[in-house]
Amino acid sequence: MTAPTERAFSVFDPTLDGDRLREECGVFGIYGHRDAAAVTALGLHALQHRGEEAAGIVSFDGSRFHSERRLGLVEDTFSKRHIIDQLPGHIAIGHVRYSTTGGTVLRNVQPFFAELAAGGFAVGHNGNLTNGLTLRRQLVDEGAMMHSTSDTEVILHLVARSRRSRFVDRFIDALRLLEGSYSLVAMTNKKLIAARDPLGIRPLVLGDLDGSPIVTSETCALDIIGAKYVRDIENGEVLVFDEHGSYSHKPFPPVPPRPCIFEYIYFSRPDSMVGGRSVYEVRKAMGSQLAHESPAAADVVVPVPDSGVPAAIGYAQASGIPYELGIIRNHYVGRTFIQPTQSIRELGVRLKHNANRAVVAGKRIVLIDDSLVRGTTSVKIVQMMREAGATEVHFRIASPPITHPDYYGIDTPEREKLLAATHTVEEMRQIIGADSLAFLSVDGIYRAVGEERRDPARPQFTDHCFTGEYPTPLTDKTTADAAPRRPALLAEAS
Amino acid sequence: MTAPTERAFSVFDPTLDGDRLREECGVFGIYGHRDAAAVTALGLHALQHRGEEAAGIVSFDGSRFHSERRLGLVEDTFSKRHIIDQLPGHIAIGHVRYSTTGGTVLRNVQPFFAELAAGGFAVGHNGNLTNGLTLRRQLVDEGAMMHSTSDTEVILHLVARSRRSRFVDRFIDALRLLEGSYSLVAMTNKKLIAARDPLGIRPLVLGDLDGSPIVTSETCALDIIGAKYVRDIENGEVLVFDEHGSYSHKPFPPVPPRPCIFEYIYFSRPDSMVGGRSVYEVRKAMGSQLAHESPAAADVVVPVPDSGVPAAIGYAQASGIPYELGIIRNHYVGRTFIQPTQSIRELGVRLKHNANRAVVAGKRIVLIDDSLVRGTTSVKIVQMMREAGATEVHFRIASPPITHPDYYGIDTPEREKLLAATHTVEEMRQIIGADSLAFLSVDGIYRAVGEERRDPARPQFTDHCFTGEYPTPLTDKTTADAAPRRPALLAEAS
Amino acid sequence: MTAPTERAFSVFDPTLDGDRLREECGVFGIYGHRDAAAVTALGLHALQHRGEEAAGIVSFDGSRFHSERRLGLVEDTFSKRHIIDQLPGHIAIGHVRYSTTGGTVLRNVQPFFAELAAGGFAVGHNGNLTNGLTLRRQLVDEGAMMHSTSDTEVILHLVARSRRSRFVDRFIDALRLLEGSYSLVAMTNKKLIAARDPLGIRPLVLGDLDGSPIVTSETCALDIIGAKYVRDIENGEVLVFDEHGSYSHKPFPPVPPRPCIFEYIYFSRPDSMVGGRSVYEVRKAMGSQLAHESPAAADVVVPVPDSGVPAAIGYAQASGIPYELGIIRNHYVGRTFIQPTQSIRELGVRLKHNANRAVVAGKRIVLIDDSLVRGTTSVKIVQMMREAGATEVHFRIASPPITHPDYYGIDTPEREKLLAATHTVEEMRQIIGADSLAFLSVDGIYRAVGEERRDPARPQFTDHCFTGEYPTPLTDKTTADAAPRRPALLAEAS
Amino acid sequence: MTAPTERAFSVFDPTLDGDRLREECGVFGIYGHRDAAAVTALGLHALQHRGEEAAGIVSFDGSRFHSERRLGLVEDTFSKRHIIDQLPGHIAIGHVRYSTTGGTVLRNVQPFFAELAAGGFAVGHNGNLTNGLTLRRQLVDEGAMMHSTSDTEVILHLVARSRRSRFVDRFIDALRLLEGSYSLVAMTNKKLIAARDPLGIRPLVLGDLDGSPIVTSETCALDIIGAKYVRDIENGEVLVFDEHGSYSHKPFPPVPPRPCIFEYIYFSRPDSMVGGRSVYEVRKAMGSQLAHESPAAADVVVPVPDSGVPAAIGYAQASGIPYELGIIRNHYVGRTFIQPTQSIRELGVRLKHNANRAVVAGKRIVLIDDSLVRGTTSVKIVQMMREAGATEVHFRIASPPITHPDYYGIDTPEREKLLAATHTVEEMRQIIGADSLAFLSVDGIYRAVGEERRDPARPQFTDHCFTGEYPTPLTDKTTADAAPRRPALLAEAS
Repeated sequence: MTAPTERAFSVFDPTLDGDRLREECGVFGIYGHRDAAAVTALGLHALQHRGEEAAGIVSFDGSRFHSERRLGLVEDTFSKRHIIDQLPGHIAIGHVRYSTTGGTVLRNVQPFFAELAAGGFAVGHNGNLTNGLTLRRQLVDEGAMMHSTSDTEVILHLVARSRRSRFVDRFIDALRLLEGSYSLVAMTNKKLIAARDPLGIRPLVLGDLDGSPIVTSETCALDIIGAKYVRDIENGEVLVFDEHGSYSHKPFPPVPPRPCIFEYIYFSRPDSMVGGRSVYEVRKAMGSQLAHESPAAADVVVPVPDSGVPAAIGYAQASGIPYELGIIRNHYVGRTFIQPTQSIRELGVRLKHNANRAVVAGKRIVLIDDSLVRGTTSVKIVQMMREAGATEVHFRIASPPITHPDYYGIDTPEREKLLAATHTVEEMRQIIGADSLAFLSVDGIYRAVGEERRDPARPQFTDHCFTGEYPTPLTDKTTADAAPRRPALLAEAS
Repeated sequence: MTAPTERAFSVFDPTLDGDRLREECGVFGIYGHRDAAAVTALGLHALQHRGEEAAGIVSFDGSRFHSERRLGLVEDTFSKRHIIDQLPGHIAIGHVRYSTTGGTVLRNVQPFFAELAAGGFAVGHNGNLTNGLTLRRQLVDEGAMMHSTSDTEVILHLVARSRRSRFVDRFIDALRLLEGSYSLVAMTNKKLIAARDPLGIRPLVLGDLDGSPIVTSETCALDIIGAKYVRDIENGEVLVFDEHGSYSHKPFPPVPPRPCIFEYIYFSRPDSMVGGRSVYEVRKAMGSQLAHESPAAADVVVPVPDSGVPAAIGYAQASGIPYELGIIRNHYVGRTFIQPTQSIRELGVRLKHNANRAVVAGKRIVLIDDSLVRGTTSVKIVQMMREAGATEVHFRIASPPITHPDYYGIDTPEREKLLAATHTVEEMRQIIGADSLAFLSVDGIYRAVGEERRDPARPQFTDHCFTGEYPTPLTDKTTADAAPRRPALLAEAS
Repeated sequence: MTAPTERAFSVFDPTLDGDRLREECGVFGIYGHRDAAAVTALGLHALQHRGEEAAGIVSFDGSRFHSERRLGLVEDTFSKRHIIDQLPGHIAIGHVRYSTTGGTVLRNVQPFFAELAAGGFAVGHNGNLTNGLTLRRQLVDEGAMMHSTSDTEVILHLVARSRRSRFVDRFIDALRLLEGSYSLVAMTNKKLIAARDPLGIRPLVLGDLDGSPIVTSETCALDIIGAKYVRDIENGEVLVFDEHGSYSHKPFPPVPPRPCIFEYIYFSRPDSMVGGRSVYEVRKAMGSQLAHESPAAADVVVPVPDSGVPAAIGYAQASGIPYELGIIRNHYVGRTFIQPTQSIRELGVRLKHNANRAVVAGKRIVLIDDSLVRGTTSVKIVQMMREAGATEVHFRIASPPITHPDYYGIDTPEREKLLAATHTVEEMRQIIGADSLAFLSVDGIYRAVGEERRDPARPQFTDHCFTGEYPTPLTDKTTADAAPRRPALLAEAS
Repeated sequence: MTAPTERAFSVFDPTLDGDRLREECGVFGIYGHRDAAAVTALGLHALQHRGEEAAGIVSFDGSRFHSERRLGLVEDTFSKRHIIDQLPGHIAIGHVRYSTTGGTVLRNVQPFFAELAAGGFAVGHNGNLTNGLTLRRQLVDEGAMMHSTSDTEVILHLVARSRRSRFVDRFIDALRLLEGSYSLVAMTNKKLIAARDPLGIRPLVLGDLDGSPIVTSETCALDIIGAKYVRDIENGEVLVFDEHGSYSHKPFPPVPPRPCIFEYIYFSRPDSMVGGRSVYEVRKAMGSQLAHESPAAADVVVPVPDSGVPAAIGYAQASGIPYELGIIRNHYVGRTFIQPTQSIRELGVRLKHNANRAVVAGKRIVLIDDSLVRGTTSVKIVQMMREAGATEVHFRIASPPITHPDYYGIDTPEREKLLAATHTVEEMRQIIGADSLAFLSVDGIYRAVGEERRDPARPQFTDHCFTGEYPTPLTDKTTADAAPRRPALLAEAS
């Protein structure tokens, strides 16, 4: 029943103790395929890393909509024939999600569906609105009833209340009121719709499966079913598919795109192409850039698995130091093990990572990880390396210090819990217990993605977590009276 | 997981084959009790016969609302400590329900909850609106989003859209737009509210548990927890409890009550008092009245268990013919047994009822049941009696022929499937295969409840199923364009 | 998951608080029917009252045996097509059981199966061996390995160790070593076998379904599938069915039968015929006999439902006092309701029984129940009657005082917890709080079953619970060193 | 309920389509620790790769044994506090297993427990008897009853039937009759016992956790709880721990050990030390050995993840060709995805592996895997590489051709399904579609483990899968009449 997952808990689990960033969603939609729901299920499985806590699919069979939304992994629900059989039709959209603060409850699981006067409408959302609470308060004051705590529901209400007659116009009416990031897949009984916010903060790509268009978060969701990559959805684009073909709307004033740099550093799968770049190659380039910026006199390069692997390969190749698996990861989850007694807790149980003593003992090692959030994991990893006999531990992080929280769909801790927000590099080194510690520079990540350097006047990406430069207003945060009215129904067991 | 129930399936199962009327709901609410949810759970358990398919409870703990709604029997969910522990607070309301047409899905399970501008609001509804679809269409056209197919949700939207400022005024604003039957229990973060439609069609009583007021459908829900019966909620009354005490509103023009006579015939538990009358005594009186109207020359009086038991006791006492258990009922449910092969089906499996041969063989019997809907059960019962050796079978029904469907919360078949709507008594006798068949007269039921006779000008009860005289307009049914727009989302697996 | 049952818990639940006797098993077997497992499932459903905690079926399909054994009601498991489909074949046996002391664990659920040198062998057992522990100890000392704590497993080992060559001879070899009660259904890959202990203590009947022989505990299991009753299996008879027909073995010296009188008083279903007598008629006769022995000046006769109903009808008919339902039973189980707080516990929650005040208030009542074990239920019932306004409460028990425990398959409390074992009738009356209390005499029950009186020299039934005259040796109990070695594995979670 | 696992299904799933060898068990035991069951659960979690289908733990609390055995992963059951709480005591043993042919049913899940005359006895077994069926037949003929189809149960019966008085003597009596491989952990109410077959075919190590001895299959199960590695249990050693300390028995004539070479190639975790050697280093050495034996002119070395990773690192280091992740593995299981329609099946869905196009396109690649069984996976991997643009694909296998099945606890296909048993290397190359194919030589694996070469007269390891030289008799296989009597009970749903 519990959702077994790859990113597992332990003394080293970065997810559970907040020492890891979490993407909040992945989306997938297909138009005109006889097995629309089955294809969507496979696509969501490939996007599982973008959201492990719940998944949903909505389909339309020509006369009715069908919906299935469940907590748990995609496979827990959508690998089953009887579930897929209950989702007939040629149009389908799907969604995977993490929970935000508060427990994930079923009514927060997407895609959301609404019965509008014009007919049914379903939507799945990757991203986060920075004026979602403000819009919600306005809507409730006008008599709207909210059933979820998700700001995606706000979009449905805005569409329902638009006075335009054509559906696409109502949809665009709603988008004009939004602020923040959104990559949306939506469907009516006639159309599949994709939309990306004006800056293109979260990714969204267009693919093709034997003539059926697909829109989804990453190209790996195309690969799993052998679909072709066509192009990225552009920033600010609304793309509509129906029986007459496709039509691209550009309802916003044109601005240069500003996608989130974090997709390269951590979120996207290494085999995905994002913005035309191989994520794997970018990560290797971050590693080799790091080797140039912060070399270390060491015997072996050891990745923190699995997040640090591509950067470690890059670091090893650039430095000429051998790449070795000095830490072995137990891929069986182990997240839910209790540690019932004090004596067990004192064992320092290693559910997820184990030192590979034969590689580490007596060696000077360079440990490579992709990012550093709270640092709690790093403390334990370094300690484990020393206990296994490492003579020196040099920690290298293949991204800059994270000093600011995200508001666009990445679940970052409060600012005061971000280690780099309150400590110097030397302080962090002492906390972590490494012999040396270094981060990749901000310009370094720009070089890794192929830019010469960051353009301070007009940054090519949004890198607010490293720089504090947010690409949109933060209305909910800054509005004086925006202290959101606390939702009344906060607890639901089912 | 399976819902074990008392009214079980078999060749004789009147529920599954539609040969039984089904009440659609029971409600319970309590104000100011430290174990509000636990008490509500017990009350719902006592009301289980009013709705076996789903149950829900909402509580408020002083700062938050808590909700649990599940398919299945009350005990399946609410007997468990960890569930009750998740429903803290001093105010709680609960609901049990049958599904109407279409499958029961979780989003239709009550109490419904809405986040209004004024705060949270929860409501449970026993009854049925006769203008629910009409109101729903108007609301959707104005941009309202519906999440259930229940017309109870309409009430929430009407409250949300009222322009009045006081909550009670908004609630009454909404009630004024309703047509049909409703016994409502509702709650906000400050109040418990009870409301009964202007005619008082469905029952609603007020009780007291050591100073905590209770509103609920039947007195048996007071008895289970040792609460005192105070009075019936009056027709057209809106009764509000808060920290200042209680206040009774009478927002409608005063009219005489016209409660549904069927509560006495079938729905209410025999140990309940309805409208000040003992349901058991009324049923016995129907039986003795029937003995006077339609005597039979027989050796034993045999009830169809359990529905015909009180009337059979009354018939036996009035006629002097011995009362005997000629049919034994298997109280283990058996509803879900498959009959996998033709050879098994031909066995005529008797999952629920068995003839008590020792009582029946060689005897002339009077079979007593409380009502006759489609007649399919009666056919099989009579046949079983003959196979067990009964020499004569006289069937007596302790209520009049059902000729018209209900629109006030009782799940009756379409008119053409009501046996009495399309057949004479003699035709019915032939179909059922009895040696004689008789029904209680309409005046007979009025006498059984203590009236002299039915007042045709101003009937003391609503008896539309027997007479076709509906006590309210039937807007959804009669409006020319009322063909409800088919809801777009008809299928949901979870 | 928990087994929902008819005999439910509450302040009045006689099962949970030990104030009720419990039969330990029911058996069913059929030979030569194409739907053997489905028919067996239906038969077990009719026998559900003989064992609610677990059920199992074994079938043989011509080349393999198939087995399914589960905790819970028959319907929970065997109503499902996919389960029945996994039990193919023309021979099947089944079993329902209560647990004895200690939790029911799956490995104790019958039928038991063994892989003998001669092939597979399965057996289901109703009854209890009085030398089971003694035999077990001998077998373990010889190197046998026991997997259950059931003494039925002993029978399998005895068959396995017999040195005879024919299977039936091995089986009879084993039976000769047994002491106590047993009604067995067994099967090999060729035969269906029924066996009843030399005294015929537990019931076992032979039926016929269109040429397929059936052996089962009660005739109600024949009725449910429309099978014909042929005869009772005789005491000491071993009856074998195979492709050549049937053969009756009588391996024991002939003695008169001595069936357990308790089947009439409580265990068997009222619609069953036991030993050629209608259980319903016997119970009514016990009631009328009781009316003659112990009349009461009262206004109404009230049964304790459902156990006292037939006796109450008999009492009412014999006494001329009207029969009324003064106690209403909630047939929804309610067994698992927690009573979370002291304040709830003090409510004296009435989950199972409620007074029907309209019948009781202001009346002198005769309460009829079938037996009295610990008396805890009776105390509460009498109190409830008085709270509902009864002016006098006369308690009448339609069987004699239970003074001795059973060792033949009925789960009786320790002797010191049997109220009648340690108190006079007057003391019991005071404890129960009744105005008068009376039991049926021992001769009274013999008269109710049609005997003139008990034959003290050669009792026609075993009535040891009332008289302390046990019909067999009690080896386990009396052997000096019989203190059974405590089994080593006492706890298993699954 | 479903067992989420790391070795997942897909078109490339080597487990499901039999293209992967499967170890059948892992064992763990601890003596004298207050949290014996919790420690055992963690140890089993570390051994999960040795058996994913079921897990069990038995503990002894000073007076009783406690047992829990379940299908599914260790975490599914034993991560839960309430389960661990039901396994109190200071001694515990545990077991993980794969099923062999036929479904895994609960009664086959270990540890097995028996109630012997001397008291309780539990045992867990890693390995396989080559005379198990022969012994089983003899035992059944003597009246023993078998409840499982596992040959481990045979050991219990042999212990039960020994005529010796001391428990250890009975245990050794039983071992003398066994043939084949066994690493056993066993326990009584006083002792923890470890035993390894005379050749030491399967691994077994001794560890120490703060004074509490541990015996387990691999050192990684010591690492997870921070226990110290003490030594390997010797071949033919029986090691007993009780309150008096430990005692090592050597009941067999001394012979040199002959452990199974496959533990290095595939089964053991890379961070384990087996026979004093680092598994990771051995695998790397196999890769570098392979680079020397079979070089390739290529641009990148690509491992088949995760099995080929260490050998690929070794190959890359030895050859100087860069190591790159050319195949990305989806660690979310995906095993249970149905492929409902022909059109979906034709997509060639890539649930588990995806080509990392950026690395592969336009490159000559050396693919490294650890072994080749049926070759079905390799066909698909090569095809995927070509579709991703690889210009040449050179396949290198870091072990010799598997030509013979195993009988010692590894689940190998029938000989005719082993690709290398029936094809030349060139034929295999053509089937797989590679540009070149090469295997490591037999002497090459000996060199990788540090031997100069295989000693043909007295091989230092058992390598029968590559050479056909079996280290023990194969009684069940060779005995003329050994065709095992088919067990009668072959199907059990639960």
